[in-house]
Amino acid sequence: MPGDFAYKQALIVRLDLKMGRGKTAVQCAHAAVSASNEAHAAFPDWWKHWIQEGQAKIALKVPDLEAIMKLKREAATKGLPHYVVEDRGLTQVPPGTITCLGIGPAPSHLLDVLTGDLPLL
Amino acid sequence: MPGDFAYKQALIVRLDLKMGRGKTAVQCAHAAVSASNEAHAAFPDWWKHWIQEGQAKIALKVPDLEAIMKLKREAATKGLPHYVVEDRGLTQVPPGTITCLGIGPAPSHLLDVLTGDLPLL
Repeated sequence: MPGDFAYKQALIVRLDLKMGRGKTAVQCAHAAVSASNEAHAAFPDWWKHWIQEGQAKIALKVPDLEAIMKLKREAATKGLPHYVVEDRGLTQVPPGTITCLGIGPAPSHLLDVLTGDLPLL
Repeated sequence: MPGDFAYKQALIVRLDLKMGRGKTAVQCAHAAVSASNEAHAAFPDWWKHWIQEGQAKIALKVPDLEAIMKLKREAATKGLPHYVVEDRGLTQVPPGTITCLGIGPAPSHLLDVLTGDLPLL
């Protein structure tokens, strides 16, 4: 389980948008690449350890925009690398819709404070 | 649609494993990060244009392992950056199971030759 890794990344999806399987996967992939780039720039040691450990990731869900923005603010307050995915709105959701939040890679114990109670996607 | 972008990345998932929504998202995220790292190292201009263009991604599906390995060989033959995700097998699939293939970022016209006929995930 991701909890056994020293470093991990959380991908947090809004459930209220009712995105399909492929759309959800693409939003998570976008969050993963962009949050990983943030970490690579700001916390290169975290990024390196995470890659070496096999890039542990966990997909989680929140009910709505309010929940995702609350987590985003908490990640910013804690100084954790993160990225909010704003969709182009070409399919399934209106342009500019915030679909997904990536936090980390970061040390698991720091991430768990924010995301440890969220249900799996 | 991703076809309108000059650069894109394809995330190709095995359907026969019947992975759940969260597991599928995590496998695609892994493929996206690792194939993006491959491109960053080998084709930094492709990577940069892809990021600047907004990181277009498309999630596609194939029926089984044979189909995914055929595409992997084709990507290697064409010299396109790619990454095969081998799962740790902690949940849902046995350890070492190949779940997903990421190809690109690469110029869309080069990627379409390989993946243009695959159905959306």
